[in-house]
Amino acid sequence: MPSNQQILLDNRPVGEAVASNFKLVDSTTPALQDGEVLVRHHFLSLDPYMRGRMNDSKSYAAPQPLGQVMQGGTVGEVVESRNTRYPVGDKVVGMGGWQQYSVVNANQPGALRKVDTTHVPLSAYLGAVGMPGVTAWYGLVKICEPKVGETMVVSAATGAVGSAFAALSKARGCRTVGIAGGPDKCKYAVDELGFDACIDYKQHQTAASLSKALKEACPNGIDGYFENVGGMVLDAVLPQMNAFGRIAVCGMIAGYDGQPLPLSHPALILMQRLKVQGFIVSEHMDIWPEALTELGTLVATGKLRARESIAQGLASAPEAFLGLLKGRNFGKQLVQLI
Amino acid sequence: MPSNQQILLDNRPVGEAVASNFKLVDSTTPALQDGEVLVRHHFLSLDPYMRGRMNDSKSYAAPQPLGQVMQGGTVGEVVESRNTRYPVGDKVVGMGGWQQYSVVNANQPGALRKVDTTHVPLSAYLGAVGMPGVTAWYGLVKICEPKVGETMVVSAATGAVGSAFAALSKARGCRTVGIAGGPDKCKYAVDELGFDACIDYKQHQTAASLSKALKEACPNGIDGYFENVGGMVLDAVLPQMNAFGRIAVCGMIAGYDGQPLPLSHPALILMQRLKVQGFIVSEHMDIWPEALTELGTLVATGKLRARESIAQGLASAPEAFLGLLKGRNFGKQLVQLI
Repeated sequence: MPSNQQILLDNRPVGEAVASNFKLVDSTTPALQDGEVLVRHHFLSLDPYMRGRMNDSKSYAAPQPLGQVMQGGTVGEVVESRNTRYPVGDKVVGMGGWQQYSVVNANQPGALRKVDTTHVPLSAYLGAVGMPGVTAWYGLVKICEPKVGETMVVSAATGAVGSAFAALSKARGCRTVGIAGGPDKCKYAVDELGFDACIDYKQHQTAASLSKALKEACPNGIDGYFENVGGMVLDAVLPQMNAFGRIAVCGMIAGYDGQPLPLSHPALILMQRLKVQGFIVSEHMDIWPEALTELGTLVATGKLRARESIAQGLASAPEAFLGLLKGRNFGKQLVQLI
Repeated sequence: MPSNQQILLDNRPVGEAVASNFKLVDSTTPALQDGEVLVRHHFLSLDPYMRGRMNDSKSYAAPQPLGQVMQGGTVGEVVESRNTRYPVGDKVVGMGGWQQYSVVNANQPGALRKVDTTHVPLSAYLGAVGMPGVTAWYGLVKICEPKVGETMVVSAATGAVGSAFAALSKARGCRTVGIAGGPDKCKYAVDELGFDACIDYKQHQTAASLSKALKEACPNGIDGYFENVGGMVLDAVLPQMNAFGRIAVCGMIAGYDGQPLPLSHPALILMQRLKVQGFIVSEHMDIWPEALTELGTLVATGKLRARESIAQGLASAPEAFLGLLKGRNFGKQLVQLI
């Protein structure tokens, strides 16, 4: 029964999330029952969706319960096992939460997934070859429906989702344009991630100004847009959408703190006959195998080299998470736990 | 060469459209060329989309040219013919415009459609069995995708589109709720059009209040919404949408005069994984035959008894049109020309 550091949700944010919403505690892991395994977490994934769950409000997922371990994706190694299908030494991805170890009933469908680290590093299963990668795949393939020669745009372009989006979109023969915050991220997007262009939204004070920059970067207009941000960015994109354009709404991080986030010109949805569709990737498990196969190949062949921001140690998770919400991370935000 | 009264677009609206934007002139019809017919218009259709075309701005349709006859749908009778397929006496529907007569090259595909008035009155081909009816059909069937037992909602419920929507939605086994302006329209919606309930938006000063009324009328939430209005009504509907709900955006009449018309909480599109899709029925000609067959049957069997507001004489068209934009009409707005 190893000692197990955990981070609990202690209280809910009032407006902006703060470090004191979280509480670090020490516990020990319980003894294993039949079918269970003990997983030592190597990496914890930090993702924007976690902010939504910290609120006690109607949303797509049940709220994170107070006083319990923060939920989150993890990769690690089986270090004790009472399940013959998951022997000690197996590398697994699961929803282990913000803690060093988790005890998992491995017979429960979907609870653990074995992964192969021969060609793909373990941490990638939380990013490019994990939930964020599949999120990009679903939004691009199933909602943005890219055709060769079309223009696809994504916000939060250097994040885990945006990075995968770029590789998937380029593979489909599309002009691919990113929106990111700051010159370093924009340079990285073009030099390393394969974006044809990347716009620094921090250089623009108004939606009109950002929209003009998008027009220059997308001379044939925008056919597909993957929304991670909302607010001014969405207002800037909408006037550049071509007729019959598709918008996949995956995140509206700009509004997670509860401030109003109106859409200025919804009439453009009609004028340009747009399809605007929200989705949550966990509700589309049927496409995961196909998506993971493509994403794994892109990573193994070096066509998708997603950057990671790695915070060290569980205690650093709250600050790393708050930085993620403010766009301070650069690439997929992870916490290394060993 | 009969004399032919015409209404031209004389100048474009600055803000609200006004009667002086139009100009009534007298002309004569030209002599027929081979293949042409002279149609005497019995009825002219007035439709909200005409307001958008009066602006010289980017929209789905080319602007109505200045100094030319206002475009619009008409039904009438062939009174002279140099086309053997369209002999004198044929009843036809076409885009004859705001005038008493039109000369049409009947060989041009789609220019004229012969109609049968045995079971369906001629004027219905401009409403329930015409463009508005097909509009309702497309939005309901192709975007709202109704399933038995679901709840479908439409704004401008007693208009030509809303009336057809009700009959089509009830035929698919859905709870069908309307939103209309005033107690008379709401009573008519329930008593005559078959709506299960109808909410008078004029009784509500805020989106929150209207949303509460919608919640009461839609105890199982809203699965499909057909938007004719925009603005406060859309803000009120969005919080009542069920997960995976569908919104067909057909009109945003509230914003036609150019005032800002923001959507307050677009994040609900994500939270409820909604699909919001704009469309224009003239871009989906492939579904017209199927839709017209169903709509014609509903009218012929008395299951769709759409109300008409009939203005008399071409000179009355501008005021009737301006009234339509303010919701002063009750049912399909027509102008009788004979």
